[in-house]
Amino acid sequence: MIHIAILGYGTVGSGVAEVLATNMQTISGRVDKTINIKYILDLRDFPDSPYGEKHVKDFSIIDNDPDIKIVVEVMGGSGAAYQFTKASLEKGRSVVTSNKELVALHGAELLSIAKKNNTNYLFEASVGGGIPIIKGINQCLAANKIEEVYGILNGTTNYILSKMVQEGSTFEYALKEAQELGYAEADPTADIAGIDAARKICILTSLSTGLHFYPETMQTTGITKISQSDIAMAKRMGRVIKLLGRAVISDEGKVCAVVAPFLIEQTHPLAPVEDVNNAILVKGNVIGQCMFYGPGAGKLPTASAVVADIMDAAKHTERRICIDWVNPSENMIDDGASVLTDLYLRISNRQHTLPDVLEAVTKVFGGNYSILSAESDDFYAIILKDQPYKTLEDNVKKLEKMDILVKNYIRMLK
Amino acid sequence: MIHIAILGYGTVGSGVAEVLATNMQTISGRVDKTINIKYILDLRDFPDSPYGEKHVKDFSIIDNDPDIKIVVEVMGGSGAAYQFTKASLEKGRSVVTSNKELVALHGAELLSIAKKNNTNYLFEASVGGGIPIIKGINQCLAANKIEEVYGILNGTTNYILSKMVQEGSTFEYALKEAQELGYAEADPTADIAGIDAARKICILTSLSTGLHFYPETMQTTGITKISQSDIAMAKRMGRVIKLLGRAVISDEGKVCAVVAPFLIEQTHPLAPVEDVNNAILVKGNVIGQCMFYGPGAGKLPTASAVVADIMDAAKHTERRICIDWVNPSENMIDDGASVLTDLYLRISNRQHTLPDVLEAVTKVFGGNYSILSAESDDFYAIILKDQPYKTLEDNVKKLEKMDILVKNYIRMLK
Repeated sequence: MIHIAILGYGTVGSGVAEVLATNMQTISGRVDKTINIKYILDLRDFPDSPYGEKHVKDFSIIDNDPDIKIVVEVMGGSGAAYQFTKASLEKGRSVVTSNKELVALHGAELLSIAKKNNTNYLFEASVGGGIPIIKGINQCLAANKIEEVYGILNGTTNYILSKMVQEGSTFEYALKEAQELGYAEADPTADIAGIDAARKICILTSLSTGLHFYPETMQTTGITKISQSDIAMAKRMGRVIKLLGRAVISDEGKVCAVVAPFLIEQTHPLAPVEDVNNAILVKGNVIGQCMFYGPGAGKLPTASAVVADIMDAAKHTERRICIDWVNPSENMIDDGASVLTDLYLRISNRQHTLPDVLEAVTKVFGGNYSILSAESDDFYAIILKDQPYKTLEDNVKKLEKMDILVKNYIRMLK
Repeated sequence: MIHIAILGYGTVGSGVAEVLATNMQTISGRVDKTINIKYILDLRDFPDSPYGEKHVKDFSIIDNDPDIKIVVEVMGGSGAAYQFTKASLEKGRSVVTSNKELVALHGAELLSIAKKNNTNYLFEASVGGGIPIIKGINQCLAANKIEEVYGILNGTTNYILSKMVQEGSTFEYALKEAQELGYAEADPTADIAGIDAARKICILTSLSTGLHFYPETMQTTGITKISQSDIAMAKRMGRVIKLLGRAVISDEGKVCAVVAPFLIEQTHPLAPVEDVNNAILVKGNVIGQCMFYGPGAGKLPTASAVVADIMDAAKHTERRICIDWVNPSENMIDDGASVLTDLYLRISNRQHTLPDVLEAVTKVFGGNYSILSAESDDFYAIILKDQPYKTLEDNVKKLEKMDILVKNYIRMLK
């Protein structure tokens, strides 16, 4: 029998308990041990919980119990979660988590504490919900140099964009619907501003390079500016708009990463990924391209990934999962000067005539453009060829200084 | 340093050597050891090979060298490969393979020999080429009871079907093209008759249930009967035709498995999987549905999976990959009486009038049908509701005995 403690009895924590109970037989069979929940830490009261006396409010009870071999941190945030994780790893306990914020902010440090104490810090559930993308990159594609990782990493924004396409909803209406369904939080900023996706692409980048890549170092654009006009233009191009996290890794290991909406072709494997599903494509130098697809969030799918990690930790109480991220000794950030994209620009037609707008656009972005909008549209939609990531934002600002009102600009995925 | 021997220097074997050389640095970094190819066994001569004296023709040289810790069996077949695998496992060596025929025929026995000798028998590359579906089911979805596994498991037939749709080719022409491109063998029977896909769905089923499921116990239909008429009817239904392997696992662990062409909706995640790509969907009782997609064949993708297994074996020279398939003690075969499908039937219009055909069809299959064909078609296309898998083949034979010429019948995926 192996004793575990669950920190946090919210959606994921109660899901973990449920999965361990539902599939007890299958799980013990595969691990060759019974997994016993000895404690559940949460400051709230759960009078109806079947776990009765296992509920505790004081972490020191768990910390001081030598029976505990695995700590499951599913409380979220980077305050108490950070302290409890450090304390547990320092005692040589395996820690399993779904906490992407903590992994993205302190992954390198926590992994090095785990290594020093010959134990495991496992975080399959931190990216892609139930999709096994962490083991996918770390173990299954281990023979590859990873050249690119990109995908739909946030279920909430994908749900909103799906509804805007399927039902012609406005952004605000689709967001409200997502909140009513429990897919978006009361304060949806982390999702719709791309912060959640940024944490996830950072984790995948760190895993791919072995160097901790921090969220604050990357361009992050959310979906709040996307309107039905953009969706109509996407359709005209045979494309759909998806919020992607994307990291391109150069031969020297430098990383150009962004979170931003992308226009992707309808035949692209990511195009049919709807609602709260996630999908992640990995390009390796020997495998070519490989995709992992599934439920990106939700109580049981996320718990499925957490429990797979618990099983891994239970089978291997000594350290075995060789994940090391060191802090980058020199600058690993690629400024994007050589990562090119075609760019879709939508500009108000209120202030200036099309020739005037085109003159300004070619002055700033160079000459190679095509026009997508029709005369009946109340905007100009322009496609620019081969623009470097590096200068996109600055160039849009330059246009705005020239009194050109840019309604939106979106990268086009090749 | 860890010494390995490669058995077979064909496409996969030479790919494994190439991947180990190309990504040597990445690989040694992740394994913490150098992997050294000490021998390559093949009866042929390779005068231009860079591996010179490492080429040997006598297995006993490898068998008797105590340095060898990992044997990489990529020779194929179930004769010598079977003997060499057994001998190596009995010496406590890890064996890594891409040989689906051997795993499908002798997996249970070889896994039990590996277990007895505290070593590993690993076969990631046996299904889905570079796609990590074996680790996906065995480790990543370990917290789930698997309820269903299905997908596109054979690249050659998927290439042929893609060409028939995209270019309107006949089956024969698309097959010839596949052979010229090296995607199909001179004798393409194993691919086009569904035998290769059957081996793979058997491996996935065994992995999902823990009971060895043998290919000879399942219905296997290939793609040779599919014509442009079927493809046109599929389009009329908003569907595409794909050769799928599909296993449905009941609550009691009984398995209903088939390989057959299926009509799938154009919005289904498998529909956009084109050419030699593979994709596999797994339904688990907690994760819901998850898909793995990527290159299903090819020298380097397959080698990528083999090398990932070599790395796993090199990191863990003791047994660690807990795969056990026991031979089923009682009948695990579900006869398909309760697995229902809508069925597409295409019948010649030369012998009988439509009312006569419908009378015969309803007599055999029951009354719930719709008619898909138009008057201008030179056949009758009929859709039958909710037919049990069990009786499909027999019912078609009954029709034929009634002098009704059935050109083709295809299951429709819900």
